Amino acid sequence: MNGKKEKVVIVGGGLVGPVCALYMAKRGYDVSLYEYRHDPRELGYIRGRSINLAASHRARRALRDLGIEDAILRVGIPMKGRFLHVPRNVLNEKLLYATKQYPNLQLFFNHKLIDVQIDKGLITFIRTDTNATVEVKADLVVGADGAHSTLRKCVLQKPLFDFSQTYVNHGYVELSIAPEFGKQMEPNHLHIWPRGNFMMIALPNYDNSWTLTLFMPFEKFYALDADDKVLNFFYDTFPDSVPLIGEKQLVKDFFRIPPSALISVKCNKYDVEDKVLLIGDAAHAIVPFYGQGMNAGFEDCTIFNEILDECNDNVPLSLKLFSTRRKNDAHAICDLALYNYVEMRDLVTRPSYKLRKFLDDFLNFILPDIWVPLYNSISFTEMNYNKCINNRRWQDKILMGVSVLLATFIVIMSFQVVFL
Amino acid sequence: MNGKKEKVVIVGGGLVGPVCALYMAKRGYDVSLYEYRHDPRELGYIRGRSINLAASHRARRALRDLGIEDAILRVGIPMKGRFLHVPRNVLNEKLLYATKQYPNLQLFFNHKLIDVQIDKGLITFIRTDTNATVEVKADLVVGADGAHSTLRKCVLQKPLFDFSQTYVNHGYVELSIAPEFGKQMEPNHLHIWPRGNFMMIALPNYDNSWTLTLFMPFEKFYALDADDKVLNFFYDTFPDSVPLIGEKQLVKDFFRIPPSALISVKCNKYDVEDKVLLIGDAAHAIVPFYGQGMNAGFEDCTIFNEILDECNDNVPLSLKLFSTRRKNDAHAICDLALYNYVEMRDLVTRPSYKLRKFLDDFLNFILPDIWVPLYNSISFTEMNYNKCINNRRWQDKILMGVSVLLATFIVIMSFQVVFL
Repeated sequence: MNGKKEKVVIVGGGLVGPVCALYMAKRGYDVSLYEYRHDPRELGYIRGRSINLAASHRARRALRDLGIEDAILRVGIPMKGRFLHVPRNVLNEKLLYATKQYPNLQLFFNHKLIDVQIDKGLITFIRTDTNATVEVKADLVVGADGAHSTLRKCVLQKPLFDFSQTYVNHGYVELSIAPEFGKQMEPNHLHIWPRGNFMMIALPNYDNSWTLTLFMPFEKFYALDADDKVLNFFYDTFPDSVPLIGEKQLVKDFFRIPPSALISVKCNKYDVEDKVLLIGDAAHAIVPFYGQGMNAGFEDCTIFNEILDECNDNVPLSLKLFSTRRKNDAHAICDLALYNYVEMRDLVTRPSYKLRKFLDDFLNFILPDIWVPLYNSISFTEMNYNKCINNRRWQDKILMGVSVLLATFIVIMSFQVVFL
Repeated sequence: MNGKKEKVVIVGGGLVGPVCALYMAKRGYDVSLYEYRHDPRELGYIRGRSINLAASHRARRALRDLGIEDAILRVGIPMKGRFLHVPRNVLNEKLLYATKQYPNLQLFFNHKLIDVQIDKGLITFIRTDTNATVEVKADLVVGADGAHSTLRKCVLQKPLFDFSQTYVNHGYVELSIAPEFGKQMEPNHLHIWPRGNFMMIALPNYDNSWTLTLFMPFEKFYALDADDKVLNFFYDTFPDSVPLIGEKQLVKDFFRIPPSALISVKCNKYDVEDKVLLIGDAAHAIVPFYGQGMNAGFEDCTIFNEILDECNDNVPLSLKLFSTRRKNDAHAICDLALYNYVEMRDLVTRPSYKLRKFLDDFLNFILPDIWVPLYNSISFTEMNYNKCINNRRWQDKILMGVSVLLATFIVIMSFQVVFL
């Protein structure tokens, strides 16, 4: 370490990009981070896409590694079960400020990625403010530029790079509850209104306001094309929410922007030709229903850092190992996140779900190290996502076996009672 | 037809692009076709990717619609079973020459697609010869620019556009047999050397030479890294082919270029925002094992032409209908082509395959309109690909039912013989 002069270019200054940049700068690499947008620290608050994020165990592990967990804790809202809710823009700014401690880490805003020539390690940007073309050379290019990653588009043509993007047929809109009404809601909890094939959730903000997100099939959104239809729908479906939001605010928020789409992205590898690495949403965008998007992205950085340790900073080898080690886990959390939408909007209301949850919690209480329910292993451990699923499978088998034994026993006993 | 002045821009001057251009010009649209490469008619023969194509029923239907089937027949090689083999470059040139008959159809070469602004219908090219930027307006942009379509990349970010690209872990190299030795092979047939998890095929050219294609797992290719290893492999595996190819030529051809990869592409729709249409490999690249790549691409054009008829040239409506009508069929031929690799390299040698083929051919002979085997329906009819598969399913069920009846009958008879 230290004394290394390999040049790393990171594309994307959202959340995962800066975390990766901090890890790499800490290792002594010469790191430049390029972001398409303007520096958010100069812009102030912008209303936009989902503004609240759940940092659970995996994200907090990365923040701790980088020595900024405490700073983030001070601006977040602790939730039941070791979750921390953080506004996206605040977290983004804290991460960008944290880069200042490394003289070997530079930030460049208003740089739009245009092209990468991997064999030459040459990256071309266009400055969105001056229209100037900027060429940069790098030994490693990291794509942390989100679900619609431009870097990924540049490598899409490389042989044997499998890629898929899939949308669910549901969209979402964000609504809000003002602080004066937000106080009426039980704080430090995620609220869910499960309604079968759609749902609304509420997450608290630090000023006592709440952000509501309504997830619903697109057809249902398109059917609500007038103010009175929206209000009727809410009075019918979420009557308790209307007084908290306020009729006027509700209609305004609902029509502010069209419902947003939800994408899943899978790749069969994240390294390309010893020079390119994809991480975060660029590598594995997932739907938000497990609250694991940011967690999985930060964990990418933690794992790549560990692999660099193991490989003595042999970058090409580390890139290959990262793909091998991360692929199944990324696919697993992608599938789990899709599944959890069904669970949240529908299954939670069913007795079978409640019974299972009761059994899981009970067994976890008496065997805390052995019986870790799926949700806990995803959110409160660093267990590989794929192992979390396998874990759930043997738990399923045991519960199934016990049920069959129990049922057989009851049938035999009934026979004895009735016939003997 | 006739007074229409809608402007159509077609991206891609390979095979499917010109066929679509001809259909649209015939309908009276103002058509411009843009191709990235130089005009192939000025370049002469270029050795490159798979140079022989099988035109079966679907491709010939399109050529017939456009009045150029006879011209193509004269340069192709008739094969057993109503196939026609055509060298790719000859077909390409014939199609480009055919565009001359339409004053409302212009060709532009050396134009590289850079960007599309769909809402404005604005397409940006860069001239590869002069570096000049060219902007074109169009009412409809058709992407026929192949498996790695640039137009598709431009629309990848549009909401609800699902896309996947998947490689098989096998590659291929092309070898050749010179005319003087090619005469020894039985002409007008496809030759197959099935070898379990790999295979070689041979297709005849019109000068008595043959093009051989070796399909094999990449690891197997990488293991053959020296001349003697390649020769030993061929003497062990395809001993009859070595004298025909010649040792020196074999080694030269084998190492000329690295093994090529095989990609499958699936989209959930081919129309974007009333202005963009994807066809051919850009919409549904498939592996070559059913010889249906070009056929499916040409059929796209035939079907879009039929839909424009039905919709009175309402383009936005026709685009939507095309997606709905074509999606399942495109996915079906994609899956079938993958499956046929297993059949060609492995299953064909098995008794169960031979028995089924015998039964299929026999039933097709006595019930030609009712019992159409899968291969025949794909290659020699215009039945929807998806229907071809459903067809095969009921045939499977009938044969299975008859087998069970027969087996039961035999068991009962045996019992009677043994016990009564």
